[in-house]
Amino acid sequence: GLALGLWRRQAELAAAREDEEEKELRQRFMAPPVSGLRELRRRRRELRSRMELLIMETQAEMFRALAALDPSASFAVDSWERKEGGGGISCVLQDGEVFEKAGVNVSVVTGLLSEEAAEQMRSRGKSLKAKDGKLPFCAMGVSSVIHPKNPHVPTMHFNYRYFEIEEADGTKQWWFGGGTDLTPTYLNEEDAVHFHKTLKEACDKHDLKLYPKYKKWCDDYFYIKHRGERRGIGGIFFDDMDSPSKEEVFQFVKSCAKSVVPCYIPIVKKHCHDPFTPEEKLWQQLRRGRYVEFNLIYDRGTKFGLVTPGSRTESILMSLPLTARWEYMHNPPESSKEAEILEVLRNPKDWVH
Amino acid sequence: GLALGLWRRQAELAAAREDEEEKELRQRFMAPPVSGLRELRRRRRELRSRMELLIMETQAEMFRALAALDPSASFAVDSWERKEGGGGISCVLQDGEVFEKAGVNVSVVTGLLSEEAAEQMRSRGKSLKAKDGKLPFCAMGVSSVIHPKNPHVPTMHFNYRYFEIEEADGTKQWWFGGGTDLTPTYLNEEDAVHFHKTLKEACDKHDLKLYPKYKKWCDDYFYIKHRGERRGIGGIFFDDMDSPSKEEVFQFVKSCAKSVVPCYIPIVKKHCHDPFTPEEKLWQQLRRGRYVEFNLIYDRGTKFGLVTPGSRTESILMSLPLTARWEYMHNPPESSKEAEILEVLRNPKDWVH
Repeated sequence: GLALGLWRRQAELAAAREDEEEKELRQRFMAPPVSGLRELRRRRRELRSRMELLIMETQAEMFRALAALDPSASFAVDSWERKEGGGGISCVLQDGEVFEKAGVNVSVVTGLLSEEAAEQMRSRGKSLKAKDGKLPFCAMGVSSVIHPKNPHVPTMHFNYRYFEIEEADGTKQWWFGGGTDLTPTYLNEEDAVHFHKTLKEACDKHDLKLYPKYKKWCDDYFYIKHRGERRGIGGIFFDDMDSPSKEEVFQFVKSCAKSVVPCYIPIVKKHCHDPFTPEEKLWQQLRRGRYVEFNLIYDRGTKFGLVTPGSRTESILMSLPLTARWEYMHNPPESSKEAEILEVLRNPKDWVH
Repeated sequence: GLALGLWRRQAELAAAREDEEEKELRQRFMAPPVSGLRELRRRRRELRSRMELLIMETQAEMFRALAALDPSASFAVDSWERKEGGGGISCVLQDGEVFEKAGVNVSVVTGLLSEEAAEQMRSRGKSLKAKDGKLPFCAMGVSSVIHPKNPHVPTMHFNYRYFEIEEADGTKQWWFGGGTDLTPTYLNEEDAVHFHKTLKEACDKHDLKLYPKYKKWCDDYFYIKHRGERRGIGGIFFDDMDSPSKEEVFQFVKSCAKSVVPCYIPIVKKHCHDPFTPEEKLWQQLRRGRYVEFNLIYDRGTKFGLVTPGSRTESILMSLPLTARWEYMHNPPESSKEAEILEVLRNPKDWVH
């Protein structure tokens, strides 16, 4: 009796401890993680688990900061599963007082790489040796697009992701990618400097070469070729990052992820009550149109998502604004505030040195 | 003196006749044709010239019909040149009482095919043998997208085009393509039947096999894969049409082009004063969003245009609506009018037999 009672007591304690941990983790996140808390705890030393915890934390930090600024907005937290493996959590806030539409999405997708996706990667210089044409992979990331109502508050986007592919001989290829960038309707130099400076500080902790390199990559990536303009005033962007070491790259990505709230939230607070005119709102809507053009025509993540079997269209296209506008031959007058931002989109500037 | 006087008199008469002809042609068109009236007259027996006259006439017929229905709308007629060869005429009507945005565009583009465009064509099964990598081509067409204000008036699109490519050995490949299709916000069976019947009649004059074949091609082409929906309720669509003969295909294309006004204008007249609710306007805006998705992600013409060097972006993207909307997870309630049209977009129907 005593031995059995003791064993029972220990099991009860263990269960209580587990409940406590689950409760704590649940408070840290918007929903239970895709891989399950137990599994994440069991494999807590593996990078995949640490990255999943980081993207879950980043989602919760950002989404809670947004919800706190816009308590009257309707919001949705959807957990979804992918039949082919994995799933995700989409948090969306819509038609609020501060935000027109804001989404923070986590996805953890596992399975076999489609031939289309493998080709897309090979064209970027990856040599992927498949076993019987099959390439087991795991892709996880957090991504977010925030479209505010007020034209003096810029749109912001970030995405941090980790990729693992198992080749025919069992070796694993891995890399990180990501970035944070800002799309203002009107130029505010102080905001631009704050945004870039915060990103530069996150990068500089790891390597002084990173910020200049990834700032330029961002300007090159978010280029709307048929318009001769960038989508916004940039930030940082990188892909295929696999050196100096898994641990060091993870630490860099962590610094970037931790910087998304301080990059953006102060700018929202500063301008969300700025007065604006109907003409300023109209210009914002035209810029939203350009945002849609970039995302649907050029964005690699959107394209990859839409061709991945079983992907969740609503979460991928969450990035689109609530409303957008296209006018034929709209050209702002010279030396207007509208022409000022266009000039910067055509010729990117350095905001910090 | 007399001989010289007679010669002068004849020259004056010839000039007057030419002025008269120019005047007449100008009245038939929205602007002077890209290839020049004199050149078109000189080569009046060539199919290129006859097709250019047809697309110019179609533009004028449609645009004048639109302008007559919406006299208060602001409109623009822009002639533009392409540095690399050719040019076009864009007619756009914007923010009127009946139409949100309506464009009818003619382009006549000549030059050398870009490697990108040639590859796109080869992937469709064309064998194009280039001379020193160069493929002289001529592409001309009329295309139009009409987005009305009232959600009970459908959006309409048509495009008729002719392509010629000169291969290394001097032989010319040629083909026609085109189509007319309808995108209603709400289903009106009577309108759907009128639209398809008018198209069927145009096709049946040439070959009874054409309408069923091109109706299906239209349903297949305007498919938004990531949504599992078609863009609209279809119409006809065809490409690479090069038989039975150049003359016969031209006559078929002419019948189609002549049917665009009778296909659509009666529907506009019938519904442009229908009362509508804010909820109906909202659903229209969401459908506009899907229209943008199709055009920017899938449409071959848009893609071809945007990658063609020296192409005119404003004329290509004229097809985008003035305004569009994206809501996260918008699902209309069962047995609503919104669900009714979705059902038809998911499972295309036959409207005439």
